[in-house]
Amino acid sequence: MPSPSTPVRPDPGAFARRVRSRETVVGYWVVLDAPPATERIARIGYDYVAIDAQHGLLDYRGVLTGLLAVDAGGSAGVVRVAANDPTAIGQALDAGARGLIVPLVNSAADAAAAVAAAKYPPFGVRSYGPMRSGLRIGPVPAEADEQTAVLAMIETAAGLAAVEEIAATPGLDGLYVGPSDLAINIGGAYPGDPAVKADFDAALERVLAAAAGAGIAAGIHTPHGSVARERLAEGWTFVTVASDVVHLETIARDHLGTARGEQR
Amino acid sequence: MPSPSTPVRPDPGAFARRVRSRETVVGYWVVLDAPPATERIARIGYDYVAIDAQHGLLDYRGVLTGLLAVDAGGSAGVVRVAANDPTAIGQALDAGARGLIVPLVNSAADAAAAVAAAKYPPFGVRSYGPMRSGLRIGPVPAEADEQTAVLAMIETAAGLAAVEEIAATPGLDGLYVGPSDLAINIGGAYPGDPAVKADFDAALERVLAAAAGAGIAAGIHTPHGSVARERLAEGWTFVTVASDVVHLETIARDHLGTARGEQR
Amino acid sequence: MPSPSTPVRPDPGAFARRVRSRETVVGYWVVLDAPPATERIARIGYDYVAIDAQHGLLDYRGVLTGLLAVDAGGSAGVVRVAANDPTAIGQALDAGARGLIVPLVNSAADAAAAVAAAKYPPFGVRSYGPMRSGLRIGPVPAEADEQTAVLAMIETAAGLAAVEEIAATPGLDGLYVGPSDLAINIGGAYPGDPAVKADFDAALERVLAAAAGAGIAAGIHTPHGSVARERLAEGWTFVTVASDVVHLETIARDHLGTARGEQR
Amino acid sequence: MPSPSTPVRPDPGAFARRVRSRETVVGYWVVLDAPPATERIARIGYDYVAIDAQHGLLDYRGVLTGLLAVDAGGSAGVVRVAANDPTAIGQALDAGARGLIVPLVNSAADAAAAVAAAKYPPFGVRSYGPMRSGLRIGPVPAEADEQTAVLAMIETAAGLAAVEEIAATPGLDGLYVGPSDLAINIGGAYPGDPAVKADFDAALERVLAAAAGAGIAAGIHTPHGSVARERLAEGWTFVTVASDVVHLETIARDHLGTARGEQR
Amino acid sequence: MPSPSTPVRPDPGAFARRVRSRETVVGYWVVLDAPPATERIARIGYDYVAIDAQHGLLDYRGVLTGLLAVDAGGSAGVVRVAANDPTAIGQALDAGARGLIVPLVNSAADAAAAVAAAKYPPFGVRSYGPMRSGLRIGPVPAEADEQTAVLAMIETAAGLAAVEEIAATPGLDGLYVGPSDLAINIGGAYPGDPAVKADFDAALERVLAAAAGAGIAAGIHTPHGSVARERLAEGWTFVTVASDVVHLETIARDHLGTARGEQR
Amino acid sequence: MPSPSTPVRPDPGAFARRVRSRETVVGYWVVLDAPPATERIARIGYDYVAIDAQHGLLDYRGVLTGLLAVDAGGSAGVVRVAANDPTAIGQALDAGARGLIVPLVNSAADAAAAVAAAKYPPFGVRSYGPMRSGLRIGPVPAEADEQTAVLAMIETAAGLAAVEEIAATPGLDGLYVGPSDLAINIGGAYPGDPAVKADFDAALERVLAAAAGAGIAAGIHTPHGSVARERLAEGWTFVTVASDVVHLETIARDHLGTARGEQR
Ligand SMILES: [Mg+2]
Ligand SMILES: [Mg+2]
Ligand SMILES: [Mg+2]
Ligand SMILES: [Mg+2]
Ligand SMILES: [Mg+2]
Ligand SMILES: [Mg+2]
Repeated sequence: MPSPSTPVRPDPGAFARRVRSRETVVGYWVVLDAPPATERIARIGYDYVAIDAQHGLLDYRGVLTGLLAVDAGGSAGVVRVAANDPTAIGQALDAGARGLIVPLVNSAADAAAAVAAAKYPPFGVRSYGPMRSGLRIGPVPAEADEQTAVLAMIETAAGLAAVEEIAATPGLDGLYVGPSDLAINIGGAYPGDPAVKADFDAALERVLAAAAGAGIAAGIHTPHGSVARERLAEGWTFVTVASDVVHLETIARDHLGTARGEQR
Repeated sequence: MPSPSTPVRPDPGAFARRVRSRETVVGYWVVLDAPPATERIARIGYDYVAIDAQHGLLDYRGVLTGLLAVDAGGSAGVVRVAANDPTAIGQALDAGARGLIVPLVNSAADAAAAVAAAKYPPFGVRSYGPMRSGLRIGPVPAEADEQTAVLAMIETAAGLAAVEEIAATPGLDGLYVGPSDLAINIGGAYPGDPAVKADFDAALERVLAAAAGAGIAAGIHTPHGSVARERLAEGWTFVTVASDVVHLETIARDHLGTARGEQR
Repeated sequence: MPSPSTPVRPDPGAFARRVRSRETVVGYWVVLDAPPATERIARIGYDYVAIDAQHGLLDYRGVLTGLLAVDAGGSAGVVRVAANDPTAIGQALDAGARGLIVPLVNSAADAAAAVAAAKYPPFGVRSYGPMRSGLRIGPVPAEADEQTAVLAMIETAAGLAAVEEIAATPGLDGLYVGPSDLAINIGGAYPGDPAVKADFDAALERVLAAAAGAGIAAGIHTPHGSVARERLAEGWTFVTVASDVVHLETIARDHLGTARGEQR
Repeated sequence: MPSPSTPVRPDPGAFARRVRSRETVVGYWVVLDAPPATERIARIGYDYVAIDAQHGLLDYRGVLTGLLAVDAGGSAGVVRVAANDPTAIGQALDAGARGLIVPLVNSAADAAAAVAAAKYPPFGVRSYGPMRSGLRIGPVPAEADEQTAVLAMIETAAGLAAVEEIAATPGLDGLYVGPSDLAINIGGAYPGDPAVKADFDAALERVLAAAAGAGIAAGIHTPHGSVARERLAEGWTFVTVASDVVHLETIARDHLGTARGEQR
Repeated sequence: MPSPSTPVRPDPGAFARRVRSRETVVGYWVVLDAPPATERIARIGYDYVAIDAQHGLLDYRGVLTGLLAVDAGGSAGVVRVAANDPTAIGQALDAGARGLIVPLVNSAADAAAAVAAAKYPPFGVRSYGPMRSGLRIGPVPAEADEQTAVLAMIETAAGLAAVEEIAATPGLDGLYVGPSDLAINIGGAYPGDPAVKADFDAALERVLAAAAGAGIAAGIHTPHGSVARERLAEGWTFVTVASDVVHLETIARDHLGTARGEQR
Repeated sequence: MPSPSTPVRPDPGAFARRVRSRETVVGYWVVLDAPPATERIARIGYDYVAIDAQHGLLDYRGVLTGLLAVDAGGSAGVVRVAANDPTAIGQALDAGARGLIVPLVNSAADAAAAVAAAKYPPFGVRSYGPMRSGLRIGPVPAEADEQTAVLAMIETAAGLAAVEEIAATPGLDGLYVGPSDLAINIGGAYPGDPAVKADFDAALERVLAAAAGAGIAAGIHTPHGSVARERLAEGWTFVTVASDVVHLETIARDHLGTARGEQR
């Protein structure tokens, strides 16, 4: 039977356990391939740091080194995979992700496929070869399954329509709303379009209720800590503040305005 | 005679000319090897973006791609070289820097060496091979010399003691204060140590006066737009706001505090 | 509503508009992950520079930095995606492509899938997260859709057989012939095999006619400027000259032969 | 007709020919993106070196530079592709692989798809653009097909159940057992679980027999040279010893134990 | 006054303190730019892991990511700098090294220069900008000085002749023998040349005695755990086992020999 | 005594021996960090391929992978080091260079320093640690010294004035003219300035004569195969054609002109 490669490992399943028990957790969203920045963010105190392999500005090396940086910083690394695809899901887990955010889950079948890709047999079809993650998670398959969380993104009209069935998928640990895509998919002309606000708010309530009904976590992407705080107050169990490149641009622009004495 | 490789080039010497004429210019400081972030910052409106090859988290590829990102973003790329060394200076210029910030200039001889390294014969000793910069600057040697600025860091007790001679160095375009090193070098226990505030302030006045006396630019590193604004009010002609990784950590921490409802 | 991140942006939709109006445009084909070379090529005057993510010697970082180099050089970046796959298509657009060349389009359904992957709802299914492209294209979804072109490769027997239906796909902006694959797929033993020349030429005429009939652009890959010129004379509306690594090998071999005084 | 780009090329099809003729060949398995290490291993005398793009710690740049290192070292480069996917298969071949190990082949249809992806028309559907491999393999399509081997992994219960049909797939050159996945898929709690030893051993015999019956190669992954030797004695025609990162960890741990005088 | 960026940091000065107190410490030597391998090695239990920037196959990005991997793995990162040069020394410390191994220290002046480069004013001349190390070490200058060790390599005839003066350098924490260079420098035709064994052994005794006399650590490079054990028995206080690429080649060759049934 | 790590190695000293015997050799100059392109060029038939670490667009990883590509392609790798500096010289040799081109050799002392840095004791001061080169060159120190060539660039007025003494330096294998720097250093306004043609031509004759007088090789940089041919006819024993990025730009521009039907 495999043995862990080092005598001491921080509790590898803490993130998954906390998400499953619907504890409040707050994360940060990274799209830059800048490991020293990611390490710094991981040390601030966020419960998790998500590396975005779908819209992020990085590829597999960036995921791998990003997760290494998150581990060095002492947070829990999560990956938003590029697609609901077994290869992408397996590689994120092999790289050491403690949680997966799977985009564009539009049906119960999509959700079941995501879970299957993330779990070893007999529960799923994940292929064995935890080249980095075996150091920290598992390495026995059933333990690895236990220690990693699978979160399905609800961000299309189809996904919203099927959200209760999606939430009922065995092995799924939570729902995660992508507000930009959701807004556009329900008719918005752009993310945050006020023309669809009522529908958007109703959609969020439906997702919240579906997660609560299934006893799984309810998460949502947010652009700012203040929005995150509001979402937690609404009952979401986990929130991500996003994203590094946008925040960096924002603060750099603020400093420029201040330096030039511009009114804002 | 060499001809530019493209018919249209934005005014390649604008940064050097503005610095030399003691116009007010405001820059941003990059230590991360994250070209898409650097490109975004370069589009915000800063007059220049400096890539830090001394304390930055990057090597020559990072300098090269960073300058490419700055050009793509429409600002002027400057490099703080790793050392007052002809190889480092030549490579930064070959990569396309429009300005050089040379650390640890402690004497007029150091300043003269920095200028010599940055200029082609007969004025200096720069070796010819502008593999990237020739696209944008020069490429005739005398034009390249004209279009690139050399800035000497005053950040040690020795540099301060020699600041008037340094400022008088032919071909030097400006002084640039590194406040952290300067504070430590004049007896501070750490950057910003209030115990040396009086000496520190006097040092800044001396640098300002030396630059004004020599008719060259006076610049200083600042951590925040508000400090930058104060420095401009004091008479500094250029200021850099620093740095990306610190600002990113700051804003990420602020968002976390807000999300958690912490008092600050 | 989103606002562009900088006040000045070169006309982001010019490439798509010119292709759609069947203007003559000439591009260059890059397979090397060598951003400073790509930047140089982008400055020469080509209307577009295509980064090849299918057969090119690069991965997503290469696409991203390649497009950055093309923007720095002032041309329009196009990506030949690795496959007709929504993830690959979305990521190329997020990285800043102004046009997509989609390989192996074998049916009208394939073409519709390519268009859907490239367009935001309601027209398509592209996921929102324009981490780099939002700087330059869009960022409002409908604008981004307008400003980016989708080109389908006709390079198999099946694609040729369905070329008129493919050309009629709503949202498709042009056809693009891959001559090597086409030659092999219609029975050639190798690209350029004279044994299939008559069929090959007939195929090209059919593609040309299909594009003209549908009022969309007709493009073709060429190995040399002289072939490109001939193709333009035949009525093709856009041509790419290919590729960097082959041209570099060719010219390096020519110089060696010349240096050694070999007859050619 | 295409001509090879250099006058002298080592026998490009030797690996495929030896595998097909069921000669004994021994390989090594690389998961690290460390080209100088891979080059060293390739010089030791292994008949092939496999770069793992499924569970390995690398992406396409790692595959490309890894194969370059294998060629520099004088062995034959093989790629275990990330998935049974035409894009992944085509890119591995374009990068210069002389053999492909295709994971998770669960049916004759899967095997036929793998072969089709690896062969040019008329036999298959591989797209033409051998940007690196054309230097060394082929470049005429039929020659390239002849010079590259396709090996199907048998590592699931479904694959095992269909192994005879898989082995009969035209164009397939061998079977390759992934023992870790196979053990888990037939009910083991972890790789090497003794609880399923009898079934596991029976599975291996069935694979061996299927390969022999079809006249194709029979290969298996092994963790150690001594296991490799046993497998060869059992009749397997090719074996890989795996893997670099595990072996490095093992030897580094052994040195530490020795240095500290620990009993083992 | 600067505050650490996170509330919890493992004892940052433990390595330096243990070296200074002449405790026995055992390290491992990394020349590969392969962060996931380095992380694994750092988890095995070595007291430190040294990244070799002199003869290693990496540059500054490799040092930076290597140290990140060592921190993720829970060991102490040390850097053998490329040269006894203030820029190289400062950058290794900025990247987060807890110890420096400085090559080719040939005189007391060389040793003093190494120490000066590694320490902030007033003790030395290190420039302030601990972009990564500030997270973990210091960040107050005097604390950072206390928490990082400086080790001088004795590996030339000149260094050996001056070893007692070198050992007496204020701020120097230890000597470190480079056996390959030392053997060649005292007349050996190659590392380990038996023709100079007597002189070599006498040299080691002299270094041991010099370190003991000065009350500083005595370290030596070794190729194997068994040699490391012997050196510790001789009285050396720290030993490095070297190196990853050689050990990997060794074990890969052993596995091949075993697989082929070769006698050794 | 060290043994080579593989049984078969191509003649490692052929390049050095041919240069020393004043055979005619023709090389190519690489400034791009594009290993697959470099491998292709190395297969064309050039006697050597030089990687430019002074003005090239690459850093140490680029040198290392570039030399790996040259070895894979079957040519001899040479490095133009960034500076006449022992660290740069040692690292180029450790990476596997078979020859060194050392820039800016201005005196006999400079030449002696370059040779000393390139040779192991007792002849020089090179430090032992041939992490990649030991695979292919040496690895016994005296053999490595024999198998690697050192070439001094004559490209300044001072270097020209001392050329006879430089040529007489023991261990120096050749002179190499950098025409761009030489033209500028003798008063030209730019490389190729006709105003200094007479002095330039006289300088070349002096270098040729100095090399011949010392019995060492005489080399020169050229932009084109036709110039290379002329130089060989003048008596130069080795010539490099330069460079990849310029040739690529040239041929890409030519193709564009041809495609557009422009007169040239
Ligand atoms: Mg989304
Ligand atoms: Mg400073
Ligand atoms: Mg094609
Ligand atoms: Mg498997
Ligand atoms: Mg040494
Ligand atoms: Mg030169």
